[in-house]
Amino acid sequence: MSDNKNFHMTPDDFRKYGRAVVDWIADYYERIESFPVLSQVKPGQTRGLLPSEPPALGEAFESILKDVDNLIIPGLTHWQSPNFFAFFPANASGPAILGELLSAGLGIQGMLWSTSPACTELETHVLDWLVDMLGLPTKFKSDAAGGGVIQDSASSASLCALLAARERATEYGSNQQGCDGRLVAYASTQTHSSVEKAVKIAGLGSQNLRLIRVDDRFALRPDDLVKQIKQDRQDGLIPCFVCATVGTTSSNAMDPLSEIGGICREEGLWLHVDGAMSGTAALCPEYRYMHDGMELADSYCFNPHKWMFTNFDCDCFYVADREILIKTLSVLPEYLRNKATESGAVIDYRDWHIPLGRRFRSLKLWFVIRYYGVEGLRYHIRRHVELAQNFARWIGETDRFELVAPAPLNLVCFRHLGGDTFNQQLLDRLNQSGNIYLTHTTLNNKYVLRFCVGQTHTEEHHVYQAWRQIQETAKELEKSDLR
Amino acid sequence: MSDNKNFHMTPDDFRKYGRAVVDWIADYYERIESFPVLSQVKPGQTRGLLPSEPPALGEAFESILKDVDNLIIPGLTHWQSPNFFAFFPANASGPAILGELLSAGLGIQGMLWSTSPACTELETHVLDWLVDMLGLPTKFKSDAAGGGVIQDSASSASLCALLAARERATEYGSNQQGCDGRLVAYASTQTHSSVEKAVKIAGLGSQNLRLIRVDDRFALRPDDLVKQIKQDRQDGLIPCFVCATVGTTSSNAMDPLSEIGGICREEGLWLHVDGAMSGTAALCPEYRYMHDGMELADSYCFNPHKWMFTNFDCDCFYVADREILIKTLSVLPEYLRNKATESGAVIDYRDWHIPLGRRFRSLKLWFVIRYYGVEGLRYHIRRHVELAQNFARWIGETDRFELVAPAPLNLVCFRHLGGDTFNQQLLDRLNQSGNIYLTHTTLNNKYVLRFCVGQTHTEEHHVYQAWRQIQETAKELEKSDLR
Repeated sequence: MSDNKNFHMTPDDFRKYGRAVVDWIADYYERIESFPVLSQVKPGQTRGLLPSEPPALGEAFESILKDVDNLIIPGLTHWQSPNFFAFFPANASGPAILGELLSAGLGIQGMLWSTSPACTELETHVLDWLVDMLGLPTKFKSDAAGGGVIQDSASSASLCALLAARERATEYGSNQQGCDGRLVAYASTQTHSSVEKAVKIAGLGSQNLRLIRVDDRFALRPDDLVKQIKQDRQDGLIPCFVCATVGTTSSNAMDPLSEIGGICREEGLWLHVDGAMSGTAALCPEYRYMHDGMELADSYCFNPHKWMFTNFDCDCFYVADREILIKTLSVLPEYLRNKATESGAVIDYRDWHIPLGRRFRSLKLWFVIRYYGVEGLRYHIRRHVELAQNFARWIGETDRFELVAPAPLNLVCFRHLGGDTFNQQLLDRLNQSGNIYLTHTTLNNKYVLRFCVGQTHTEEHHVYQAWRQIQETAKELEKSDLR
Repeated sequence: MSDNKNFHMTPDDFRKYGRAVVDWIADYYERIESFPVLSQVKPGQTRGLLPSEPPALGEAFESILKDVDNLIIPGLTHWQSPNFFAFFPANASGPAILGELLSAGLGIQGMLWSTSPACTELETHVLDWLVDMLGLPTKFKSDAAGGGVIQDSASSASLCALLAARERATEYGSNQQGCDGRLVAYASTQTHSSVEKAVKIAGLGSQNLRLIRVDDRFALRPDDLVKQIKQDRQDGLIPCFVCATVGTTSSNAMDPLSEIGGICREEGLWLHVDGAMSGTAALCPEYRYMHDGMELADSYCFNPHKWMFTNFDCDCFYVADREILIKTLSVLPEYLRNKATESGAVIDYRDWHIPLGRRFRSLKLWFVIRYYGVEGLRYHIRRHVELAQNFARWIGETDRFELVAPAPLNLVCFRHLGGDTFNQQLLDRLNQSGNIYLTHTTLNNKYVLRFCVGQTHTEEHHVYQAWRQIQETAKELEKSDLR
């Protein structure tokens, strides 16, 4: 509720309440370890606390902020807790949060170059920086035929890659006449589920997605890929797209890009590489081996919003040939025509993704890169990998747990020798404790626990405490099993 | 650059720099009218100021913020300026900006109920509130068979509606076998270009999008729609989807929902209603006539990020039957399985849109509704409409300008009688002045200026000054034409 007769928040109130929210956030990070990492509310519990009707008259900002404490906090799973080891991280940082704040304050739209040139140009520039920072092929830079764009998620990026592949394979015919059920896409059994979602959305049909078998390191088997492509061609189908992954979601497996890329070149298929979390590791030269063969990729994405301290959403999506992407997604109604667009001298990012409108997301990425510097970012990546490797070593040193997959970076897949039910119970107990949060997967039909180190504020003692609790909880469970 | 040995921003520095950014934003709004509304930089100008290499070592936050002033501001088109009358607005407000800040600070992921129950439940709750606030059919509420979800944009919402329509029409066969080129979608010549984009993305093909003719108010002609559907059926095609618009982008035309809805029911087609900007007007009972027939719609969307003081992105998308949407978009890999999902007692919003990850966007919407109250929001909608209606009246009172379309709400389409080139030159001069920003469209093959009132801080004197400048600039142009 504003004192202002027009109901708006006055500039003075904005300063006052802005400080209050900034302080609230600083306080939140200082007390974050006091909350259960995984929210313990029951379904409907949060809604039950909310009034059934919206307020007719405005309320005081203080009471809104108080309700965040009382009603919202108990219903949060604390992704920014240093004891969050679940899924992949979605880490954030001070400079990112303030970049997002500034972006919200400016409130500009970046759909066209002309609707805020700096939004487009900073994005292009920072994404070019990242090509160098990660040692990616220079073809992905805007001064070559390619370029980068920020998308909301790797799911959307994969969809755009698939659409571009679909149009390249049909000479833009699918856009015109629609799909005809003959296009085929390839991934592995370990590829992220967003590729299956994309194949459905894009009208290929899930029957035309081939999930290629993986080897004992859970990496896609190129020999099987070749066989399947040949089979599909024999059946009169049209192979068009392969998704390879650098760091799969289940186990961080690294698909062999060079071999897959060679096949894609040979067969004329679009190669998209998904490096959603692990891609960030390439900031450090010693981990760039995982990108060997990237020069054969048509598109690539990784998510600074996972492991590069940039709050969601910020997926960086690169294409080697921007014309194909633009031709795939462009529509130009009269009300969006403008001189800059028609000059051809500028990028209009609306043609690079699904939505038309877009926030100024490169601001937060720019803030993060400048505030940490490349060396600051590398420091944390190395530290997280080191902590995860310690954890993997501890697993290897026990006789009760086993590693279930290679742990090349910051994700450790492990299980207790007690079997699937035991591991399920172990996970439940750990998460219900509120002290830590882990998630699971299945590998070779076994129930497996995942331990991923990537939260901004995770330190050695958090990982050590987590490991102690895992061991102690397992011991308790072993005893109750014996009873 | 942090003083911290681990490169992170310390809590104290976060408080300090957070205040600096809050104050920066407050200052920005106080000086926003001193900037040219439309950025006057040339292509490449912003990039030319940026260093070609990212910094190896972190930099001081102060110098980053200073660069926002020096490098970024000149490259912005100021969407939050009260003199912004272009496109549709993308208005923001103090409570929305602070809600976005809080969301960034919390940094949680709302992809599953379990990954932060409050994120899901607050969203469901606030979107239920909005059904009542807008007088929408109660079937869109979560306690009926429907429900609402926040999407990034009306583009994405339309795509999801089309996908659900596609799957309903093919009994989920398109998801499985892929599209076969026989599905047909319908819109009008005035429908937003995102529907054409969606038809391409979804594999229907743009040849299978019928752009139905409009009447002299630029509204879709139901008689033509019926004829086209019959023709398509005769041709062995499968009509599946109609997009009707409440407030088209070009001219704010209102498609007749009742008649279109009747046809859709008769023919078994999915009716999606796009109320991107104008939908907000339904906060005021006197404008709800435009929603007559909404009870026949299968889905609906409107954008609080356009005209409801909630910074982008915040599109509210409703479906009458959530099961169809969920069945269309759901994929469930092992690593996302959890007890809450399997209980069926919760909503997992990842199945309601394209991306997997999602921000806590309902926070800012909740902040806005609570801070303004329903009456505060209504006050501004009525005020904007009144200001636009004044402008339309002034146009009608001159002998040099004409109204080119009905102006039911806050958008006025007009032109000078001097012809297309004259109007183009007029627009260029106005925008180059930096004082105001308008955009154009074409209606009945004529070049038309659009004047949309919806910016948060636009007052009577801004509209009056704009009108004076339009008249004066036209007079200057008339004189130079005579020379």
